[in-house]
Amino acid sequence: MSITELLYKKRRGEELSTSDIEAFVRGVTRAEFADYQISAMLMAIAINGMTHRETVDLTMAMAASGDMLDLSAIHGVKCDKHSTGGVGDTTSLVLVPLVAACGVKVAKMSGRGLGFTGGTLDKLESIPGFSVSMEEERFMRQVDETGLAIIGQTASLAPCDKVLYALRDVTATVDVMPLIVSSILSKKIASGAAVIVLDVKTGSGAMMQTQDAARELARAMVDIGNSTGRRFAALVTDMNQPLGRYVGNALEVEEAIDILSNRCEGDLKTVSLALGAQILRLAGAAKDAKEGLKMLLSKLESGEGLAKLAEMVRCQGGNPDAIYDTSLLPKAQSTKDVLAARDGYVGAITTNQIGYAAKALGAGREKKEDPIDPAAGLIMRVRLGDRVRAGQPLCTLHLGPLSREAEAEKLIQSAIHLQDEPPAPHPLIYGEIE
Amino acid sequence: MSITELLYKKRRGEELSTSDIEAFVRGVTRAEFADYQISAMLMAIAINGMTHRETVDLTMAMAASGDMLDLSAIHGVKCDKHSTGGVGDTTSLVLVPLVAACGVKVAKMSGRGLGFTGGTLDKLESIPGFSVSMEEERFMRQVDETGLAIIGQTASLAPCDKVLYALRDVTATVDVMPLIVSSILSKKIASGAAVIVLDVKTGSGAMMQTQDAARELARAMVDIGNSTGRRFAALVTDMNQPLGRYVGNALEVEEAIDILSNRCEGDLKTVSLALGAQILRLAGAAKDAKEGLKMLLSKLESGEGLAKLAEMVRCQGGNPDAIYDTSLLPKAQSTKDVLAARDGYVGAITTNQIGYAAKALGAGREKKEDPIDPAAGLIMRVRLGDRVRAGQPLCTLHLGPLSREAEAEKLIQSAIHLQDEPPAPHPLIYGEIE
Repeated sequence: MSITELLYKKRRGEELSTSDIEAFVRGVTRAEFADYQISAMLMAIAINGMTHRETVDLTMAMAASGDMLDLSAIHGVKCDKHSTGGVGDTTSLVLVPLVAACGVKVAKMSGRGLGFTGGTLDKLESIPGFSVSMEEERFMRQVDETGLAIIGQTASLAPCDKVLYALRDVTATVDVMPLIVSSILSKKIASGAAVIVLDVKTGSGAMMQTQDAARELARAMVDIGNSTGRRFAALVTDMNQPLGRYVGNALEVEEAIDILSNRCEGDLKTVSLALGAQILRLAGAAKDAKEGLKMLLSKLESGEGLAKLAEMVRCQGGNPDAIYDTSLLPKAQSTKDVLAARDGYVGAITTNQIGYAAKALGAGREKKEDPIDPAAGLIMRVRLGDRVRAGQPLCTLHLGPLSREAEAEKLIQSAIHLQDEPPAPHPLIYGEIE
Repeated sequence: MSITELLYKKRRGEELSTSDIEAFVRGVTRAEFADYQISAMLMAIAINGMTHRETVDLTMAMAASGDMLDLSAIHGVKCDKHSTGGVGDTTSLVLVPLVAACGVKVAKMSGRGLGFTGGTLDKLESIPGFSVSMEEERFMRQVDETGLAIIGQTASLAPCDKVLYALRDVTATVDVMPLIVSSILSKKIASGAAVIVLDVKTGSGAMMQTQDAARELARAMVDIGNSTGRRFAALVTDMNQPLGRYVGNALEVEEAIDILSNRCEGDLKTVSLALGAQILRLAGAAKDAKEGLKMLLSKLESGEGLAKLAEMVRCQGGNPDAIYDTSLLPKAQSTKDVLAARDGYVGAITTNQIGYAAKALGAGREKKEDPIDPAAGLIMRVRLGDRVRAGQPLCTLHLGPLSREAEAEKLIQSAIHLQDEPPAPHPLIYGEIE
């Protein structure tokens, strides 16, 4: 079937067959179709939708469009985790070592930060010497022997997704359920894990701004994911404020270390453990999430989680001493407090603006090629509902040579809304989707 | 509004405002939007449609995307005529001189043949010396003084349509009512005529293969056209066989001359006069189509129509003697009859294949740059319902240096279906849309 025949079919609202979808993905991947034909298909899918079966087929065809990692050389159940992206959202650095300490293997491929969201690879690279690239064979040996590794996605992972993703951004087809689902899941499936837990964020710092949209996405991903022969679960979690207090690369590593060192409580710890508990449950290491949580807490309290992180850092070329002495992590040249302009309650936080502020300080990048400053970022001094006085610090900027300080300060001031009445509290975890 | 905002709006099925549509057309014309964005909009329009108001706005914005001819220097009502394209469809060469002979001015811009359809410009250029390009001022003077001129569309006429037309062909958005309507009408409106008569073909040699589709297109074009401040009417006419007996460039000129010389009857004459009568009616030169028909017939019988054609040929650099002595037109090197393989009735003719056969002989082109042979083509020896004997000629090929004779013969043989029973007769004119 030619591309115009495929386009006619989807234009008429008909269901594409498995071989239709394979032909489409093949043509996209091999660059046999023009961008204007692919974008016409994206728009047709955006309007006419895709059935469950079509979305499963699209996901699998996209996963198979490049290398499919075979993790069978690793003993035991191989797990992975994915977040739809947020601010101060460094759950991976907390849960991966704890899950590994419980004996469940995590073979994780991560991405870099882009836009207002951070990226696990950038955070890890702020640890002196840490390398996120590795031969496939060494990656598997490390996971098999130590229980964990986090590396960068290879260019050959789901190459079809790269083409579609770039076109979606410029053709008003970003928020299209079957396209989001297949984009996220195809990469996870190509990475080879058997158990995958998804953290679907909702709120002012998330792709899905409403709870309903996030729940719908989580449901779709788990349903589609489970139809691909892997075990999926998802949590819908709050992103109406930065999850952790620290936003930035070395800063977020430091907060993860603080949690794993059992000297810090808070939402980041709660969500990390909840996601980890789901992994243990799905992997069969715990009979339910409650038991999983208990296992993770014991590994946290015993220091075994922190030791796993240090072991991963050592295996991947980083300085493991930095895990026990965070003064060895990159530090900002200077800091500056952003002060409350009035008395009031923290009523709302436009969280993506906090992410953009961190980027303006040098923690993130606009384009892939842009340099970042591992030490730059910010520490939130308030959380939603807090009562503040005029002149009290809302946030501390961590400044460096790339910092656009005034821009960041303006973003922070407009992002943190002070009001007379305390706001209604947000749940932290909206639901669990199995 | 940005292109992605426009795309979101149409994707959600909302009505685009006049300024939205103007912004879209402006961005397309100035090449500010990428092809993949334009094609996403075409697909969104294909699926979600356009209201009457949107289609009028699109038509007017496309018309205004390039030069808008101002024909006010020409005295009287200026008329034009458009056919959706067919085979052996040379009504313009018959009706334009007759209408002009009745005192109504025809300022016509025509196109070239492409695919299986012929083009008026190619036909006129088969007259030795005839030129279809002319300065705007001279064009208007010729129409004002002699009542008629036929020239080529300038590149600056509705340039937005050129971009959309090329993309529609490769993105499965050809048969989309608002896009067809705005494509055809925008060029007619930019050409400046106040009265425009449309010939919407239906059948095996037409874009609209069914009567219903043709009627719907005719109705949409007349409704939209009348909303632009011009006077429109349309006939839906049959294209289940070549309209005239001659298919090819010089051949079709010869048949037009035969009709204007009052030595040839047939469907081509009937449809040409019916279209001309509509023009006279809309222009106010006749009180109704019946009176218009009478006027045209009298100009035909008096030879004034033929004289007008000769006058136009002379004004545009051609040899007017060729109009009175068709032996001066280009002639084929040789001819060859295609014979009936069996006894039977002509039950159906796959008319577009007859067009492709003429093209294979050198009368048409695949790509714009391809050369054509003015003398090449074919003469149909049978019409639908005719009884033929095995070995009787169905068609005579007019061959030249570009002719792919075997291909043409094969196309003809498979296009003309012989059967035992006479077929049900087709109407020639299905309806008149005002």
